[in-house]
Formats: sequence, structure tokens, C-alpha cells
Amino acid sequence: MSWIKVVGIGPGSSEDLTFRAAKALKDSDVVVGYTTYINLIKPLIEGKMVIVSGMRDEVERCRKALELAGKGLKVSLVSGGDPGVYGMAGLLLEVALKGGAQTEIEVIPGVSAVNSAAAILGAPLMQDFAVVSLSDHLVPWEVIEKRLSLAAQADFVIAIYNPGSSERPENLSRAWEILMRHKKPDTPVGIVRKASREGQSVAITRLDKLPEYNVDMSTIVVVGGESTFISGRWIITPRGYRV
Amino acid sequence: MSWIKVVGIGPGSSEDLTFRAAKALKDSDVVVGYTTYINLIKPLIEGKMVIVSGMRDEVERCRKALELAGKGLKVSLVSGGDPGVYGMAGLLLEVALKGGAQTEIEVIPGVSAVNSAAAILGAPLMQDFAVVSLSDHLVPWEVIEKRLSLAAQADFVIAIYNPGSSERPENLSRAWEILMRHKKPDTPVGIVRKASREGQSVAITRLDKLPEYNVDMSTIVVVGGESTFISGRWIITPRGYRV
Repeated sequence: MSWIKVVGIGPGSSEDLTFRAAKALKDSDVVVGYTTYINLIKPLIEGKMVIVSGMRDEVERCRKALELAGKGLKVSLVSGGDPGVYGMAGLLLEVALKGGAQTEIEVIPGVSAVNSAAAILGAPLMQDFAVVSLSDHLVPWEVIEKRLSLAAQADFVIAIYNPGSSERPENLSRAWEILMRHKKPDTPVGIVRKASREGQSVAITRLDKLPEYNVDMSTIVVVGGESTFISGRWIITPRGYRV
Repeated sequence: MSWIKVVGIGPGSSEDLTFRAAKALKDSDVVVGYTTYINLIKPLIEGKMVIVSGMRDEVERCRKALELAGKGLKVSLVSGGDPGVYGMAGLLLEVALKGGAQTEIEVIPGVSAVNSAAAILGAPLMQDFAVVSLSDHLVPWEVIEKRLSLAAQADFVIAIYNPGSSERPENLSRAWEILMRHKKPDTPVGIVRKASREGQSVAITRLDKLPEYNVDMSTIVVVGGESTFISGRWIITPRGYRV
């Protein structure tokens, strides 16, 4: 029987995959994905039919996966991190529903980039947190601003995806101004680039100094809450236990 | 050399572990954890020294792990889901800092319960989202209310941990009233109990009907955003692509 599994491969190297994700790749006839992610899992898909596509071809990639499954193949659609967090899960389901596809679909969760970045920083997310993408390619900028502002007022720890884009270099500085309005200037900030991948880099700083750092689209910025503190190489938001 | 690894074992069965987590367990001399989680990974730790403790012994569990590492042992401190999301990472670091422990500590991320629940529901988190725990054991209830209210006003998809407690049965109904003030009554809601474990159950409903459902501490409730929709057994929040 044919199927499509949307496979979350985790943030980086193949050791961050779950056994379930690895099994799905192994059981599939064909693996479909964006170049970067396919390269990360190369050792696991040797000998498989692979269909690689570029960054902005997401809809086309889903159509292709559905077409192949329609021909009776078992298809893994690869997604970086967790497929449900700015990944391929939603889009595949939307394209499948629109086309009336009858294929069996399963979403296999993975370690999301935000959890990976948090682990590298120590434990910044230990209380309630919000996840916001600064990419206004698909969401109006005013909506993003409103979310940042209210999340900061609610004292959420805030994890920011897609903080730096060459097309929209001003987005992070506008986001920073909003955060500075509602969070203290010395709020701990962690900046993790290429979490758990080759070339990983980590910086720990405070909110008022964030503009001094370079960030790009493979960076996650974690902005602490009121109780978050820095100690050595760790950022910790206490859960509230008496220690 | 001794170390402590805080090992995220994912939401459920051992197939949800990453290879890195499994390797840490394999390499350790002793495994420390809460009964439920130890039972979930039993096949992976056969023959290991295991120290099991009850639910409210978190601080003691961390002290024990540090004491064992201080004696030169390699210690895995097991945490359900991701150790950085209401898990053991923060507490271990706090206890280690307080005691001036020199042990090498690493946090190994896992698939968090919220990502697992989302995968089961389809793709409800595809836009910005907030994660809130209703447990007021460690956080004042007023803070939780404020976070829920502002997150709902910001149109975040909201994932709720610890929605139902026998000690605090009123928390969910108070949270529900707040959400009803700012989200539409027909907002899609997914209720996942024991995500990815034996006895898993899933319900899909709308916000105004949430009080009709039983939830407990092993349930995650996902409340959609304005654009979230239900189709068959899926809840989808469109990312915004033109499909």
C-alpha cells in the first residue's frame, strides 16, 4: 500500500533523528525534500530514489509527493526540525485536501529547532513560551508585531525563527524595538546559529546588545522572561522549584 | 570522565527517542528518573543500574544525579518529552549551580509532547504558537491568566499543558472562559491524551464544546487560531501559501 509520511528529521545531523523517522525513511520507495535537509540525512537514504528541490518550491514538492504516492509508491517527505513547526506538515495536508487525494498520510514529529537551540543554551524555555517567525513572506508584518508585543507583555520567553533575512534586514531591528518596550534591557538573550549542525555557533548576551550580533535565517534567537538568568554558558528560566 | 546527560526520551514509546538519546542511555553507568518514564524506555536500559523516584521528588532526583556523577559515574537523568519544556533540564542546572558542582552537563533534546500531539492532530501549529501550563503549583494563577488572555488576543495557536488536575479541577474552566472572551466559539480544538503512548486517545472539537470533554494531566489541548480549520481527522492552521 502506498503512503506519504512527513518525516521530521530534527535540527541537524542524523543522530538527532528518532527511530520512527529513520524507519520511515528506510521503508520508503522515494524520498522528497529540500536540498539542505536531504544532505543532512544522506547516510540514511543511500540507494533510495531521491527527489530534491529548491527552497521556494514547497507547493510543488507536496504535489510531487502526492503524485508519486498516487502511483503506488511509499513516499517520505522530509522536513527539517519538526514538520509541524514552520515545516511541511500543514502544506502537504492542504494540498492533499484540495486535490482530493486518498493517500494515507502520517506526520512523524521531530526535535524542533527551538528545542534544540534551547538545549544548547541550557534551559531557557522552562516556563511558558511563545514561538514567533519574523518572516513576513506569508504572514502580514502587523500581525507579527502584535504577537511580539503581546507575548512580551505577557512575560513569555520568546523564541524567534527567521530573524534575519537579506531581503528584509529591518525586521529584526523593528522586532527588537518592540521587545525593548516591554522587556528589561538586561533580559538574557541566546543566539544559536545552525543548532546541532556543522558550523554551529552560540552567543549569549542581553536584549539591549542584540543589535550588535549578526543573525540569519538559520539562527534561532531566544529572549528570556523576567526570571531568566545567565550563569556561565547557560541561560536558565527557573521553573519555580525551591532549590 | 563522569558526566550527567539530561536525556529527553520523547513523548512515548522507545521509537520516539533520537539516536543521540539512546546512545546516552547506553553509555551511562546509571539511569535516574521518574517511574513512568523509566518504564517507557525499559527495553533500552536493561542491565543498567536504575534509580527510580516518585512524581514530586524532582529536586531530590537532581541531587542524586549530581551525587552519583560526583562519585565518578556517567549518569543519564531521564525526562519525558523534551527536557527543556516543563522537564528536568532547568532544575538540574539550578541544583548544580547552587551546589557548585563541577560535573560536565549536557542537555539532549527530545520530541516534545506538544509536537507529538500536533503531529497526531495534523498540523495545528503551523503559524506562531504559545505554550502554557495550567499548573499553578509553581507559577501564580494570575500570571497564567494574563498569559492566556494576551496569547489569545494575539491570535496565537495555544498549546495547553497540564489542563486537568484533580487538585485544581477549576483551572481549565477558568482558562476556557478567558479563551472564549478572545477567540471565536467555533475555534478548532484538539485534545490528545497520552500522545504516542499506550492508551492514546484523540478528540477534535470546537472551543465552545471543550467543557464537555474530560482532560487530565497527561492531556495536551491545542486551541487553534483564526485561520485554523478542521477537515476530517485533521486540524490545520494554514501557513499562508497559495495552494
